[in-house]
Amino acid sequence: MSEAAADLLGALAYASLTAFGRTAADAERAPSLAARATLSRLAVAGYRIHEALVAELVRRGVEPELAMAPFVPPIDAFHARTRSGDWFEGLLGSYVLAGLAEDFAEHAAAIVDEPLTDVLRDLGATVAAQHGRQFVEDAIREVLAADPAVAGRLALWSRRLLGEALSQAQRVAADRIELTRLLGGGLAEFGGLLVQVADRHAERMRALGLG
Amino acid sequence: MSEAAADLLGALAYASLTAFGRTAADAERAPSLAARATLSRLAVAGYRIHEALVAELVRRGVEPELAMAPFVPPIDAFHARTRSGDWFEGLLGSYVLAGLAEDFAEHAAAIVDEPLTDVLRDLGATVAAQHGRQFVEDAIREVLAADPAVAGRLALWSRRLLGEALSQAQRVAADRIELTRLLGGGLAEFGGLLVQVADRHAERMRALGLG
Repeated sequence: MSEAAADLLGALAYASLTAFGRTAADAERAPSLAARATLSRLAVAGYRIHEALVAELVRRGVEPELAMAPFVPPIDAFHARTRSGDWFEGLLGSYVLAGLAEDFAEHAAAIVDEPLTDVLRDLGATVAAQHGRQFVEDAIREVLAADPAVAGRLALWSRRLLGEALSQAQRVAADRIELTRLLGGGLAEFGGLLVQVADRHAERMRALGLG
Repeated sequence: MSEAAADLLGALAYASLTAFGRTAADAERAPSLAARATLSRLAVAGYRIHEALVAELVRRGVEPELAMAPFVPPIDAFHARTRSGDWFEGLLGSYVLAGLAEDFAEHAAAIVDEPLTDVLRDLGATVAAQHGRQFVEDAIREVLAADPAVAGRLALWSRRLLGEALSQAQRVAADRIELTRLLGGGLAEFGGLLVQVADRHAERMRALGLG
């Protein structure tokens, strides 16, 4: 497996492990036992994705820890800069990040070579199936109906999540030329991929009333 | 299903949901990616147990949230009084709690009536299979070999975990007479069950060098 392919799987494997920890921590703030159990289930789904990507790396003879290591600083920096301040920020955060992961995986699948395409398609489909979209959308719409003033704060929050995610992704792309090449060419083409992901994010936020 | 049986499953369901959150938080302090992934896997095992117990309650026509609710205060109090201070306390904590859960389930299975017996036996077996005993034992022995002075602090920590767990269990037993009856009779018999669990805990700690 090429170093760039190992990079891609390693980055996604570490991102999903940290999504697990982040979502599990957000679950602790749930306003009800049912909500806590649901967010815990979403966290577990993140761990399962991590596990599948690690298995994929191992199958290709790559040491998972080595593949993940380069992405620890940017992904940790992302989380450190976007700590959720309350239950709704946590909930929206899990929704935003799952959406970005799904769209990134789908767009990247169309660019990379086989057999990575299948791995990315599976990942996108798993995120889409597991990410508890309905639960989060219902909860966010409920809070907006009860307190419309929250919309402004949550809209800002979603833009901050997107902004930090894009800026860390660009940092990685600038550092890992081969990975960037795998994802379409140079920094300009990678930027095009990010624009597509950002557009889909904006559509989802508008649909939620956070446009 | 009797109220006492719903109590027992509800208490275990909430305990395993909180074990998930606690272990996921402890995983964030792991000294390596491999250790973090392993502790995350143990957290996921806790969530799976929660999910199985919730399914069991639903199958018996009991609303899981109602069954869990009475046990939120004592279990939350347990966690609040035993926050782990570092990675090794977290690691030993997950080991101690899994051991208590396993032994409690096994001893209780011998006391309660069918079909609860099977549920408890399954739970004990699942905890035993998943709790990553070897991983934790190796890590603890390694830190003790490197720094024998840590043994005293970890031994105290394990006794504190046990003490708080027993005191919350006794508080629950005093409040829930029917549950206590299900588990052997009166408070004295329930005390006998706790002594057995405490003895097994002490044996495990001695074997680890924390006696």
